[in-house]
Amino acid sequence: MSEHTEHTEHTEHTEHIDVEPCGAAEVARWDVTTDVIVVGFGAAGSAAAFCAAEAGAEVLVVERTGGPGGAAALAEGIVYLGGGTPIQTACGFEDSLEDMYRYMMAACGPGPDEAKIARYCAESLGHFDWLEARGVPFDPTFCADTSMAPTGTEGLVYSGGEDAYPFNEIARPAPRGHLAKTKRSTGWLLMQHLAAAATGAGAAVSADTRVDRLVVEDERVVGVQAQRFGETVSMRARRGVVLTAGGFIFNDDMLRQHCPPLARGTFKVGTEGDDGRAIRMAQAIGASVRSMYAGEVSLPITPPRTLIHGILVNGKGQRFINEDTYMGRVGQSALYEQDGEVYLLVDEATYEVNWMGLAATWVCETPEQLEAEMELPAGSLRSTLDLYNEHAARGEDPLFHKGPAWVRPLVPPIGAFDLRIGPAPYAPFTLGGLETTVDGAVLDVSGRAIPGLFAAGRTTAGVCAFGYASGLSIGDSTMFGRFAGASAAASTSG
Amino acid sequence: MSEHTEHTEHTEHTEHIDVEPCGAAEVARWDVTTDVIVVGFGAAGSAAAFCAAEAGAEVLVVERTGGPGGAAALAEGIVYLGGGTPIQTACGFEDSLEDMYRYMMAACGPGPDEAKIARYCAESLGHFDWLEARGVPFDPTFCADTSMAPTGTEGLVYSGGEDAYPFNEIARPAPRGHLAKTKRSTGWLLMQHLAAAATGAGAAVSADTRVDRLVVEDERVVGVQAQRFGETVSMRARRGVVLTAGGFIFNDDMLRQHCPPLARGTFKVGTEGDDGRAIRMAQAIGASVRSMYAGEVSLPITPPRTLIHGILVNGKGQRFINEDTYMGRVGQSALYEQDGEVYLLVDEATYEVNWMGLAATWVCETPEQLEAEMELPAGSLRSTLDLYNEHAARGEDPLFHKGPAWVRPLVPPIGAFDLRIGPAPYAPFTLGGLETTVDGAVLDVSGRAIPGLFAAGRTTAGVCAFGYASGLSIGDSTMFGRFAGASAAASTSG
Repeated sequence: MSEHTEHTEHTEHTEHIDVEPCGAAEVARWDVTTDVIVVGFGAAGSAAAFCAAEAGAEVLVVERTGGPGGAAALAEGIVYLGGGTPIQTACGFEDSLEDMYRYMMAACGPGPDEAKIARYCAESLGHFDWLEARGVPFDPTFCADTSMAPTGTEGLVYSGGEDAYPFNEIARPAPRGHLAKTKRSTGWLLMQHLAAAATGAGAAVSADTRVDRLVVEDERVVGVQAQRFGETVSMRARRGVVLTAGGFIFNDDMLRQHCPPLARGTFKVGTEGDDGRAIRMAQAIGASVRSMYAGEVSLPITPPRTLIHGILVNGKGQRFINEDTYMGRVGQSALYEQDGEVYLLVDEATYEVNWMGLAATWVCETPEQLEAEMELPAGSLRSTLDLYNEHAARGEDPLFHKGPAWVRPLVPPIGAFDLRIGPAPYAPFTLGGLETTVDGAVLDVSGRAIPGLFAAGRTTAGVCAFGYASGLSIGDSTMFGRFAGASAAASTSG
Repeated sequence: MSEHTEHTEHTEHTEHIDVEPCGAAEVARWDVTTDVIVVGFGAAGSAAAFCAAEAGAEVLVVERTGGPGGAAALAEGIVYLGGGTPIQTACGFEDSLEDMYRYMMAACGPGPDEAKIARYCAESLGHFDWLEARGVPFDPTFCADTSMAPTGTEGLVYSGGEDAYPFNEIARPAPRGHLAKTKRSTGWLLMQHLAAAATGAGAAVSADTRVDRLVVEDERVVGVQAQRFGETVSMRARRGVVLTAGGFIFNDDMLRQHCPPLARGTFKVGTEGDDGRAIRMAQAIGASVRSMYAGEVSLPITPPRTLIHGILVNGKGQRFINEDTYMGRVGQSALYEQDGEVYLLVDEATYEVNWMGLAATWVCETPEQLEAEMELPAGSLRSTLDLYNEHAARGEDPLFHKGPAWVRPLVPPIGAFDLRIGPAPYAPFTLGGLETTVDGAVLDVSGRAIPGLFAAGRTTAGVCAFGYASGLSIGDSTMFGRFAGASAAASTSG
């Protein structure tokens, strides 16, 4: 694929990132001294800065761009919360923390981080209150007809396939995707409130300042060195440094090193600051990383939801997933397991152009003609459609357990959406990163907390070891950002 | 699955491994001083020790068990070499370094390490000579009827699916699996010669000595600390330390951290020393790791090769691979992508009990009965068999391109081997590890060589980023072991 080749060539020019630590003795002069330094002013950083300041610490947020926001400000802005939030209750949904926990343990694996998930669920209701107390408004209405952010101001959506197989059999389904009240751009609104909360609590901000290295003294992180307007600035943190500087989806070297499939993504989700610098700065002093292979991959098929009546097939013409699950799971499977070769088959009753303008590339009177047009193996689509339709006539899908509401025979002519890499956008971001405790302390490779060093957000391996639901990034960024900030404020070199 | 649960419970008791580096100033007394310290006396370590000694360095091999061998001594002992070795030529096979390179670039990905593969191929013929010069004997005969080590003394086998799709269309097929001349236990014979070569060249050995930490002075690795009979021993290396201490398949914490699917393997390939300690010791001083998710997974189906006439299906009754490819690729797909739920369908003409004694668990007169017995979705096996047989009647397999010699319709009654985790052994080992240059220098996370530190073998990320062929572990262990040993001998503190 030329797309892939071109991408690979481009990536060979990735900037070399020097992240060696600096000994405190080498710092001739501290340009700044504060209690807590927060590196990055996105969702995790603003939560960390607020909580550190609230705990009485003098806080400086160091942001490489001109202002707050990070990837969260560009995101749909969903926050994954459950267990019976006021919004869930107002919308008529019952939920329990046990169901939320069971769902997350099933959906965030394989190899889910039990300790983080348990803490995440236990703090879920309190975190909703915390967001509201920061001024984030939520519209207590539910949007059913979407698998992404609603076009209206609705505050609640299904965002992780909770109501689809296998999760609907593991835990009682409930929508847990919470959105700030605004049309689209809810991430931007959320970040406005969180950034204002941080500065309102007293956190200072050094913008256009890119942190490049940690400063270490007697095995404790005591500050950072940064570049500001071409000069090196040394910043001392009496209590702790919190790394909340995003993931590494914009570092092609790291993608090849840890998760080659993600390097094929065509629409990277994040900012250019997601270059893995903070992860590497910590690794340079012996920090442990986790789940570096993992990535979420958006493959935006729906809305409209009617397309779920269709069936997804791979390059062998085989189905590979229940089409009514979370589209992020479809995208992960498509990129990691189906080699980015996926198609959606629909019939006339099912067909609509999707929200991005994706339309059927091929339409044929028979499956045999369609196979030939698509250059798929002879008989493959006929065989798959025959088996699907045989069961669908009874409203069943024994292979992948798509919900009965979405199952009906597909009647020729059959159309096919070309969802391969290139024709369709594959939008990945990384889920792996630094290994942290549930309190936000960064662990070294011996399993010990590194004194003075904390982290949260996509710089860390969060609740998702591989599987994902929309809202878990901003959810664990803001929640574990809070804890990391509070931990840093409470940390002393004594 | 109870197997899985039991395993998970067991792993919670994994020993905590402390790998913090030690500053040279903290070393009160050097118990030993030499030029080069080689950590681990397996395939990579013996090659490194020989080459360092041959280059004139004083060498000490530090081995945690009672003697040489490592995982290689337990292995089939295949060494992957090509480009027209004397054995290939004697057996009538033509091969070129270009074909070997094309095969490896296709088979060792996604994300293959081009620099290492290029070097590996360029040095292939010289490495064969080097092994012969160390006294390793090769029987110049070819064994066709196997996909693992032969039962006789034959010295050449296909070991990576070179003659199967897609590799047979990418590079001219040639067998490149070379085996030392002995019946079975060729790894043991190989290691006898390599260990003897190392000590013969003058390398000293400290057995029953477990290296726990690196000693660092001014950012250079200058020695190690080890445990010997309950005492801490400090060992100084004037020129360099070479880490050749195996992978991490016996460290369940690391498996969960980096590659959860491998934690489900039931028959780990390696020694108990493969606990990742050397990888972590280097990470503790900022070394970079790579491909930590990758693992090879043996799923021993053949011999006999007649079973390849059967078809492999997953838990949906779907085929997922060409059955005539390398069984290690089948195992990887089974464990990583099919969730360890795989079956082999055969008919009477095809059926034999396999070499391990695995036999058909179910036999039924019709596919429908078989589906029901196996509790697979109704119609799934019928549909898969119908499509397969339709093409097989013409000797074709357009879905997965199994070679025509292995394609013929399967005639009921149909039997099914239960190849799920539990009934069948899944035998994994890790492929990820330290990032090294083609000369064996360990790179830090800024991409710079760490002075005084070298590595090879399964402690490193070798030529295989994910895909594998039998013989590539011992191949890159011994070849890059040589280079790492020579580099260490040539290293000076400047």
